[in-house]
Amino acid sequence: MTTSSSRRTFLKSGAGAVIAGGALLKTDLVAAAQAPASFPEATGTFQPAETNVPQAQYPRVDARSRRVQFRIDAPQARQVQVMVGGGGGETPRMNLVKQSDGSWTLTTPPIVEGFHYYPVYIDGFESNDPGSRTFFGEGRDMSGIEIPSPLASDSFYRMRDVPHGQVREHYYFSGVTQEWRRIIVYTPPGYDQEPHRRYPVLYLQHGAGEDETGWTKQGRANVILDNLIAGGEAKPMIIVMAYGYAKFPGVAAPDLSRLRSGSPAAFFAAMQVYTGAFADDLTKVVVPLVDKAYRTIRDRDHRAMAGLSMGGFQTFEVTLNHLDMFSYIGGFSGAAFVLGNTRFDPKTAYHGVFADPAAFARRVHLLWLGAGTNEMPMIHRGLLAFQRDLVAAHIQHVFYQSPGTAHEWLTWRRDLNDFAPRLFRAA
Amino acid sequence: MTTSSSRRTFLKSGAGAVIAGGALLKTDLVAAAQAPASFPEATGTFQPAETNVPQAQYPRVDARSRRVQFRIDAPQARQVQVMVGGGGGETPRMNLVKQSDGSWTLTTPPIVEGFHYYPVYIDGFESNDPGSRTFFGEGRDMSGIEIPSPLASDSFYRMRDVPHGQVREHYYFSGVTQEWRRIIVYTPPGYDQEPHRRYPVLYLQHGAGEDETGWTKQGRANVILDNLIAGGEAKPMIIVMAYGYAKFPGVAAPDLSRLRSGSPAAFFAAMQVYTGAFADDLTKVVVPLVDKAYRTIRDRDHRAMAGLSMGGFQTFEVTLNHLDMFSYIGGFSGAAFVLGNTRFDPKTAYHGVFADPAAFARRVHLLWLGAGTNEMPMIHRGLLAFQRDLVAAHIQHVFYQSPGTAHEWLTWRRDLNDFAPRLFRAA
Repeated sequence: MTTSSSRRTFLKSGAGAVIAGGALLKTDLVAAAQAPASFPEATGTFQPAETNVPQAQYPRVDARSRRVQFRIDAPQARQVQVMVGGGGGETPRMNLVKQSDGSWTLTTPPIVEGFHYYPVYIDGFESNDPGSRTFFGEGRDMSGIEIPSPLASDSFYRMRDVPHGQVREHYYFSGVTQEWRRIIVYTPPGYDQEPHRRYPVLYLQHGAGEDETGWTKQGRANVILDNLIAGGEAKPMIIVMAYGYAKFPGVAAPDLSRLRSGSPAAFFAAMQVYTGAFADDLTKVVVPLVDKAYRTIRDRDHRAMAGLSMGGFQTFEVTLNHLDMFSYIGGFSGAAFVLGNTRFDPKTAYHGVFADPAAFARRVHLLWLGAGTNEMPMIHRGLLAFQRDLVAAHIQHVFYQSPGTAHEWLTWRRDLNDFAPRLFRAA
Repeated sequence: MTTSSSRRTFLKSGAGAVIAGGALLKTDLVAAAQAPASFPEATGTFQPAETNVPQAQYPRVDARSRRVQFRIDAPQARQVQVMVGGGGGETPRMNLVKQSDGSWTLTTPPIVEGFHYYPVYIDGFESNDPGSRTFFGEGRDMSGIEIPSPLASDSFYRMRDVPHGQVREHYYFSGVTQEWRRIIVYTPPGYDQEPHRRYPVLYLQHGAGEDETGWTKQGRANVILDNLIAGGEAKPMIIVMAYGYAKFPGVAAPDLSRLRSGSPAAFFAAMQVYTGAFADDLTKVVVPLVDKAYRTIRDRDHRAMAGLSMGGFQTFEVTLNHLDMFSYIGGFSGAAFVLGNTRFDPKTAYHGVFADPAAFARRVHLLWLGAGTNEMPMIHRGLLAFQRDLVAAHIQHVFYQSPGTAHEWLTWRRDLNDFAPRLFRAA
């Protein structure tokens, strides 16, 4: 009884059996109904990953070696592969080996610490691992796995017994996009208990293919801030996470399937359509509604914005075109001029806001840039080049490099942990 | 270029191309990169399901006929099936047909309206549909699809332009289970704007295999209450949704794989272990922390509890053993005595709380029971029998039947829509 179909049959008949017993109608324990598999190649202390669904025994991680054991029940499949990585280069697909019980198993080489999206391929079909929770990335709900970091300094994103803020889902109708949208709002510990206190606000954006849930689910922004605030390292603040895709109504959505083999410029233009209304939605709708619905301090000295990857680019676009609204700026593995064929020119960029470094430093309390050292060279070197240009132009800024991590969430957690304590110190 | 592997290659190379263009590093638009498929058998106006990921063209629903078109890109698979239903009986797997472009397609017969979890089988492997969002059910993150209801009366769960409450994630450490847990808390519109107003509380529980997110994601409890409150039909209230699985620390977790072929009694006993600490966690930890962290009215007249399926059973266990804390009780497709081999005896059940019908009616302001007419007979008939027993014993109660729906979320949305307006009228 090891086939997928028998699992479902088990669920149904198991449910029926339990109904006869008197109470429980389904079970969340299906994933636990797995026989032990053989991992002859493995030594180590493998434990279910913290990103597993309840009771799922696989995938398992050996925290010391950072190797992972996968186990997929797919007796009728001819090929099962997994792709999990976070290295700087192309991540290869790894083959699982079929066992006599119909399951497929693999013990991987050491995996980079941090959070990774990963697909499982069943006869080439990109699937999820039923043992793992899903996280919205690459435009869909993907399996994710957390590889514990061996660094004591990485405990900053672990839940501790400190006062906790709340994560709120807040729906709004956008007059800009003419649709219902949602922001996720972190309110700091004590927000409800001090009903007259007002707080500064950090607007924090996800990357391409992700959504407004990314920073709390994958990024643990709430846990990071809870810990920083408890330690007195960051000022209590509200964090607002908006959805970075926003299209003007009536604008035709380009058919991306046609653009597969098209030019990069056409693809970029299409993406601009899908994000074209973001700056307006954020500055004309979200900021005013946040200032109305939450006890914010409503001036530029108490408003920051940061984002990762695509969100970093958007942060530069929004803040440097609205310095009347924002005075703290963070680009996490993404910012204008980092990646591109357009070289930073301090005299002309963003209508000349950089042209006078002293004036810029007075106006922008923090310009913060970061990247992982194992990011693809285009990003890492691009950011280094941008930083050199900033140094050459005498633009005051902070530059941070996350050791050993790639274009992934551990980089961005570390970014936030460095960035947030620097906020709202000027006013 | 239609294989799964090419999709991933596209993502990578597409991302590279966009990087060269200057900004966006990934894309959520992969799912849109699908060529139109042939559905020769279909007539109707098929639109992407509202549960799809952004830009995904499939699955598609014809709202009039309630038929669904599925399209799965799995050129190397030998068999692709889908199981989507909500009928009263066993839901069959339906075969998709392979097209010349390597995709597999199907237009289904009419599907029951409402929300359905559904798996896709790739060569027998139970997978998700990459076009659909995932929802936590059956113990994992499953694809879900919303089939619009043709009934105008079902608009109650649609987002309207009314004031909206908030949905909050609230973490707490449970001294009962010795672990970090989470409640989801709905605060009604105006909660933050009226900082001295206090509210009654409904504790609302998910079913087996689900978690504390079910009632807002699948159930749309927040939208339902926003609409009821805006229409003056329900009193503004706080809703608290806890996680129904709670195990005492140190108690060995039974290995359910051994119980597959075991007795129903053994399986039931195992489930009791996984939920054994729930009543204590709710009454000793959650209720006190809610009364501390939120502006509640802290007495039994302003405390209700309801739950679906397993959560209904838990509601009876908690409320009838703690009538000092609760005075409104709802069982949605689940309650003690509904299903079982134990017949309801009003003289002895729950320490005799039903023995004096007049006293019970004074003490319990509302006893509410509901089920869908298309639920499996064991539940539907079980509930009818329980209701007959209540009538025979002169126990005051409300009985509601959801027409045409099964053991699924549309039943429970309708339940909540009938139940919530009856709350907090006695005090």
